[in-house]
Amino acid sequence: MFFHVKDLQYRAVPDRPDPVYAKKLQEVLGGQYGEISVMMQYLFQGWNCRGEQKYRDMLLDIGTEEIAHVEMLATMIAQLLDKAPVEEQEQAAKDPIIKDIMGGMNPQHAIVNGLGASPNDSVGYPWSARYTISSGNLLADFRANLNAETQGRLQVVRLYEMTDDAGVRDMLSFLIARDTMHQNQWAAAIEELQQKEGFVVPSTFNQEFEKQEVSHQFLNCSQGIESKSGRWASGPSIDGKGEFSFIENPVPHGQNPTLNPAPGYIHGTPMNH
Amino acid sequence: MFFHVKDLQYRAVPDRPDPVYAKKLQEVLGGQYGEISVMMQYLFQGWNCRGEQKYRDMLLDIGTEEIAHVEMLATMIAQLLDKAPVEEQEQAAKDPIIKDIMGGMNPQHAIVNGLGASPNDSVGYPWSARYTISSGNLLADFRANLNAETQGRLQVVRLYEMTDDAGVRDMLSFLIARDTMHQNQWAAAIEELQQKEGFVVPSTFNQEFEKQEVSHQFLNCSQGIESKSGRWASGPSIDGKGEFSFIENPVPHGQNPTLNPAPGYIHGTPMNH
Amino acid sequence: MFFHVKDLQYRAVPDRPDPVYAKKLQEVLGGQYGEISVMMQYLFQGWNCRGEQKYRDMLLDIGTEEIAHVEMLATMIAQLLDKAPVEEQEQAAKDPIIKDIMGGMNPQHAIVNGLGASPNDSVGYPWSARYTISSGNLLADFRANLNAETQGRLQVVRLYEMTDDAGVRDMLSFLIARDTMHQNQWAAAIEELQQKEGFVVPSTFNQEFEKQEVSHQFLNCSQGIESKSGRWASGPSIDGKGEFSFIENPVPHGQNPTLNPAPGYIHGTPMNH
Amino acid sequence: MFFHVKDLQYRAVPDRPDPVYAKKLQEVLGGQYGEISVMMQYLFQGWNCRGEQKYRDMLLDIGTEEIAHVEMLATMIAQLLDKAPVEEQEQAAKDPIIKDIMGGMNPQHAIVNGLGASPNDSVGYPWSARYTISSGNLLADFRANLNAETQGRLQVVRLYEMTDDAGVRDMLSFLIARDTMHQNQWAAAIEELQQKEGFVVPSTFNQEFEKQEVSHQFLNCSQGIESKSGRWASGPSIDGKGEFSFIENPVPHGQNPTLNPAPGYIHGTPMNH
Amino acid sequence: MFFHVKDLQYRAVPDRPDPVYAKKLQEVLGGQYGEISVMMQYLFQGWNCRGEQKYRDMLLDIGTEEIAHVEMLATMIAQLLDKAPVEEQEQAAKDPIIKDIMGGMNPQHAIVNGLGASPNDSVGYPWSARYTISSGNLLADFRANLNAETQGRLQVVRLYEMTDDAGVRDMLSFLIARDTMHQNQWAAAIEELQQKEGFVVPSTFNQEFEKQEVSHQFLNCSQGIESKSGRWASGPSIDGKGEFSFIENPVPHGQNPTLNPAPGYIHGTPMNH
Amino acid sequence: MFFHVKDLQYRAVPDRPDPVYAKKLQEVLGGQYGEISVMMQYLFQGWNCRGEQKYRDMLLDIGTEEIAHVEMLATMIAQLLDKAPVEEQEQAAKDPIIKDIMGGMNPQHAIVNGLGASPNDSVGYPWSARYTISSGNLLADFRANLNAETQGRLQVVRLYEMTDDAGVRDMLSFLIARDTMHQNQWAAAIEELQQKEGFVVPSTFNQEFEKQEVSHQFLNCSQGIESKSGRWASGPSIDGKGEFSFIENPVPHGQNPTLNPAPGYIHGTPMNH
Repeated sequence: MFFHVKDLQYRAVPDRPDPVYAKKLQEVLGGQYGEISVMMQYLFQGWNCRGEQKYRDMLLDIGTEEIAHVEMLATMIAQLLDKAPVEEQEQAAKDPIIKDIMGGMNPQHAIVNGLGASPNDSVGYPWSARYTISSGNLLADFRANLNAETQGRLQVVRLYEMTDDAGVRDMLSFLIARDTMHQNQWAAAIEELQQKEGFVVPSTFNQEFEKQEVSHQFLNCSQGIESKSGRWASGPSIDGKGEFSFIENPVPHGQNPTLNPAPGYIHGTPMNH
Repeated sequence: MFFHVKDLQYRAVPDRPDPVYAKKLQEVLGGQYGEISVMMQYLFQGWNCRGEQKYRDMLLDIGTEEIAHVEMLATMIAQLLDKAPVEEQEQAAKDPIIKDIMGGMNPQHAIVNGLGASPNDSVGYPWSARYTISSGNLLADFRANLNAETQGRLQVVRLYEMTDDAGVRDMLSFLIARDTMHQNQWAAAIEELQQKEGFVVPSTFNQEFEKQEVSHQFLNCSQGIESKSGRWASGPSIDGKGEFSFIENPVPHGQNPTLNPAPGYIHGTPMNH
Repeated sequence: MFFHVKDLQYRAVPDRPDPVYAKKLQEVLGGQYGEISVMMQYLFQGWNCRGEQKYRDMLLDIGTEEIAHVEMLATMIAQLLDKAPVEEQEQAAKDPIIKDIMGGMNPQHAIVNGLGASPNDSVGYPWSARYTISSGNLLADFRANLNAETQGRLQVVRLYEMTDDAGVRDMLSFLIARDTMHQNQWAAAIEELQQKEGFVVPSTFNQEFEKQEVSHQFLNCSQGIESKSGRWASGPSIDGKGEFSFIENPVPHGQNPTLNPAPGYIHGTPMNH
Repeated sequence: MFFHVKDLQYRAVPDRPDPVYAKKLQEVLGGQYGEISVMMQYLFQGWNCRGEQKYRDMLLDIGTEEIAHVEMLATMIAQLLDKAPVEEQEQAAKDPIIKDIMGGMNPQHAIVNGLGASPNDSVGYPWSARYTISSGNLLADFRANLNAETQGRLQVVRLYEMTDDAGVRDMLSFLIARDTMHQNQWAAAIEELQQKEGFVVPSTFNQEFEKQEVSHQFLNCSQGIESKSGRWASGPSIDGKGEFSFIENPVPHGQNPTLNPAPGYIHGTPMNH
Repeated sequence: MFFHVKDLQYRAVPDRPDPVYAKKLQEVLGGQYGEISVMMQYLFQGWNCRGEQKYRDMLLDIGTEEIAHVEMLATMIAQLLDKAPVEEQEQAAKDPIIKDIMGGMNPQHAIVNGLGASPNDSVGYPWSARYTISSGNLLADFRANLNAETQGRLQVVRLYEMTDDAGVRDMLSFLIARDTMHQNQWAAAIEELQQKEGFVVPSTFNQEFEKQEVSHQFLNCSQGIESKSGRWASGPSIDGKGEFSFIENPVPHGQNPTLNPAPGYIHGTPMNH
Repeated sequence: MFFHVKDLQYRAVPDRPDPVYAKKLQEVLGGQYGEISVMMQYLFQGWNCRGEQKYRDMLLDIGTEEIAHVEMLATMIAQLLDKAPVEEQEQAAKDPIIKDIMGGMNPQHAIVNGLGASPNDSVGYPWSARYTISSGNLLADFRANLNAETQGRLQVVRLYEMTDDAGVRDMLSFLIARDTMHQNQWAAAIEELQQKEGFVVPSTFNQEFEKQEVSHQFLNCSQGIESKSGRWASGPSIDGKGEFSFIENPVPHGQNPTLNPAPGYIHGTPMNH
């Protein structure tokens, strides 16, 4: 069960309205790697957690914190969409000049949301549950989470540099710091699990059943061998179970496929062709 | 530019048709973490690569290999949808019994695709470009790639154990091995980049501008402290720049928000309420 | 800001696993009118609220309660996906019989989510932010909310009658009762606002600017006049500003449109046709 | 079956082209609450209607009218996208200046639709059938319809004030008036059904099977009690079956969930963690 | 403007309910190539038509007919979802046996739609406006329409053979015949336009500005030359402007791309790597 | 299996950066009729091909070529997003002026993709697998392909005239020429198949089972008879099996539908209404 405290986790007050920036800021609210994504991803991973309770608790702690981040961003966006002095607004309402103000805005911010935030990204595409994963394997999911915080911090940093509004930057500086923590946190949890399970996920599949001869080969599927000079092409593999090798000219090992004709009721291309 | 070789990268021949399994196998072809996702993700990361050429080449090598994996899965699915002896099929066509055969199938495999594979997942949801990321920051993207191969191998392993068809298992054992390599590969590339850049992404943002006092705090947003006993709550942080701390009772630091009324032309709730 | 309490709002323990029912129950978790929809809708309406604080508080109270409903459903679904005695499971793993168990299941519950709930509906379609509205006009949004609770209770009632699992029914009986309250609640809030503003939304648009001659006409766009016998076709209108009338044979009042040819750079159909 | 009359239901002629406004106007054509949504929603409710024929007829009457509204908006948008004198257009075609004209436009209006309307919203997101509901319960659906006309009229009013084109405003004044009627109409139909069935939907579920002790409680899931002062927190409930009460400190009644480990073939987190 | 006639265009009465077939039949109602797609495509092409009025009229005639096809399919699906004798139904309601009846059904048909049709396809994916095209070029669009009727008839034929219900087959035999006409119709319209404009669309682009040396070359981007033996690899081209040629070993003509580093505010991979 | 050659199929170097044009060019990369659509459509048709090997080979040849077109467009877009002299960029990074540069851009090009191409269209909508078809009937699919190349060439021609950048135009002139070939190619393949099978798809359905009396009728579902003067309304039908006729006043032949009440467990509108 959840409870709400009315104060925001951190101050969210812009120096001045900026509807065009509001549109951009939607990316880290409702985008692929926005706060709704991490909120939903961590909560579902927590609710589905079949591992130790400390993982469940940790996932729900951070998932709950992310709801507060969604709240801060929504509050900030609503204020960025504000029109300043009321007299001016009334002026605007009489005059079709408001048409122009809305030039670079997301038109839905005015038409659909009445100057409020929406659970969409910076091009107005709605948040989708397919952005999230809860796989039932914590090591797998913690890697997903590390990636999410990585992409997320990168996007927030870019948005930080796209504005000089001190109030917006102040709030973003808090979110960036939390993303720093969350990258650290997932890496710490990954380290803990990898020490127990090993590197390759899932660790419980008997590797005798995989084609181990190709488990550490880099296949050079192109002309040229620039790709040979990376860490991935020679030296011990990360899982400690082999050596990387570089296959300069990979060859196919499978058949040249010929499919059977379809049964009559499928009405494919007639067979006598 | 690309060229096609008619033989498959690895043998893809099932022992017998199994249209219900064909439906499930679609997940790793056209699902969120299927082969189309990694194919498109690596190719776009390669085409957009502004870093060293060895990374571009490596990304395009593996992206090109993934097209071959899409090809193998599509070929396998088409064969799993086969109906065996032609006489039987014709029998079927005369008789509405084919209605029953199709019980557990994805109906689109028959109605839309005429017993062919489709770029959809196991519930028929179409592949979407929002499954992929190309961020312009290679360390960020390699973490995305490590996650993709992790989720992908987990799903293929599950599918391996959902069939006893030796032909299918043979092909999957190859894909599982390649996913082992690809987990190793991305981890190797990550290791290489982290040694140069450090752990936190993006490394180029001046951390003096983030609220560093919260950059290593775990916030316990719930009753109970099970989450205190993990690696993420104490000890040196992964980025080597601080110590993890556990904040048992986090408090809000922001305002209790009150928004300005909307201008008249928005026709929000009238202000005298 | 939000805090989590580990106990569920209400007991969520099924009598026995039932993966097929788990698939159906997803509808009221991640469907168009599921709990995620109301959670997100109320929270965003609250965060965007520019009206009196009591509305903001009320919206966030109920939005916060809905997170707990999402939690209960996710927990229930995870348990419905359980396999009972561990020995049996291990048996299953050795044997392709697990293939059959999964017949009526959503295959993603096993392949993607590892026997966990997902933020999708009963056919596996992902939850989408386009299910929600936050319009900036509270009366408009409370009507949306009344509708959501109405469709929601209808769906939960149907699901109640599709199972005889006493544990599931017990939890649903709680959700049904809360939906009863929430229908009452939104109707009460609507009543309060309509008394201040009047019935037609938005109330602030000067109705002299609408074509008032058609503001209370029912247009019979079909043969036959069965539709004449309803409350909507005669008597005083609900807004108290007119009388309903029934136009048996409505006629067009607009032009027969002819569009200008497109400019050359559009390469439409050549003009000499 | 349907027949088409070539004249529009109402005049749709703008004073002058305005491609930027055309983009905005798409919202009420192909958006979540645009005319396609109500057209499809009413037609499907009518076709699925298992109640009295007067409801079926009424639904199909208004659904048929909505096709005419879609037609008017599409016609208007095509004209807003017009380029005026033909000579000028030819000039434009020679000159890349057309690049600039297209600044604020939806680029698809030119590239994809050749200066025609499309079934998308104001950010180019395609109309989706998930915007509609046909539940088989008329009272439920009429509440959905009242909401749709409420959101719809609010959006059209906002668009009215975003232009000073007299031709556009003239057409919108007709649509606004029809939305006035349609809000009245659905409220009238709701009133009629509620008098027969009562308020809570579905009325046919035996309320003894719901947890009636929470059927009229407002749960204050936050600090502070601003939400106590509304109509929903005290006094007789709208369904006439109880009294609203305000629970200042709601407590959880469910378990602290612990899930069973997953079977081996799921390859979740290994159990010895 | 549109008018509705209550009788269906053609009889739509199944011999008996069949909820599993109802799910499959949704494909040609709300799928990619279902009746909603052609209805919306033809109506929008008609409304956007800037060519001769005979094309506009023709498009709206057939678009209007398609609404009647949507109506017939929706009506048929609702009846296929019927439960026959009322007594039996009441029996079912008391008994959880209804759980089993719903095995192969689309669960949304019961939970969401209350035994009604929905604007979705056979896997429950919602109809999307991205299925349609209205390009402003009639020859282009008529080719889209010919394709739509081709795929559509193929799917209806498959569905015809998946049932032995005489009532369903009767209705489908009507739709199949109309698709025969519509394939003929679009081919006739294409023939008419091609005689005026020529074959290549758009015909108004000055072909001197295209790289004409590759306008009739078939590029063999694979080993092996099976593709050489088709009509497309030799002989006069269809547009009458050249000869097809077969390039056995196509070579690249472009650069090996190297992209510039990103500016600092993008925080891409640091440049010293 | 596939191999990559590092040189592009054709030169892709713009004269200068133009981020606004980059946004538009996305349409033919990731839009409904962009290069990703044809790439995926042809590859899946090839992999699913159950007809003669020459068709499979041809499909995979052209599908493989289309990957190279995706590559050229992605490379071009990345360069259009470039910022020219590095010093200027650093200037920009210090200064919020970069905010303005981004006015007409797709904000995701900066925030999400770090100045790279993405698999989305010109309004940022992600590429979807529902844009493609692989039906198992080659004649059907070749008509889909002809349409795709037709819409595609039309869009590229429009984009050609929206820029005066000689480098961009040079690359587009190559793509336009290939689209010329591909329109020719599919028409040639269609001609070849139609000579064997006849015109109507699928040709294998026994036409005695369709309602042949309506197989060549044009139904005039509107007032007025402008649509009578086309090739489709009189003369021999294209399939050579009849004469087109024009039905000026089509009448319905079906029932006026009345549906049975729903069973009790559906909780539809109560039956006594």
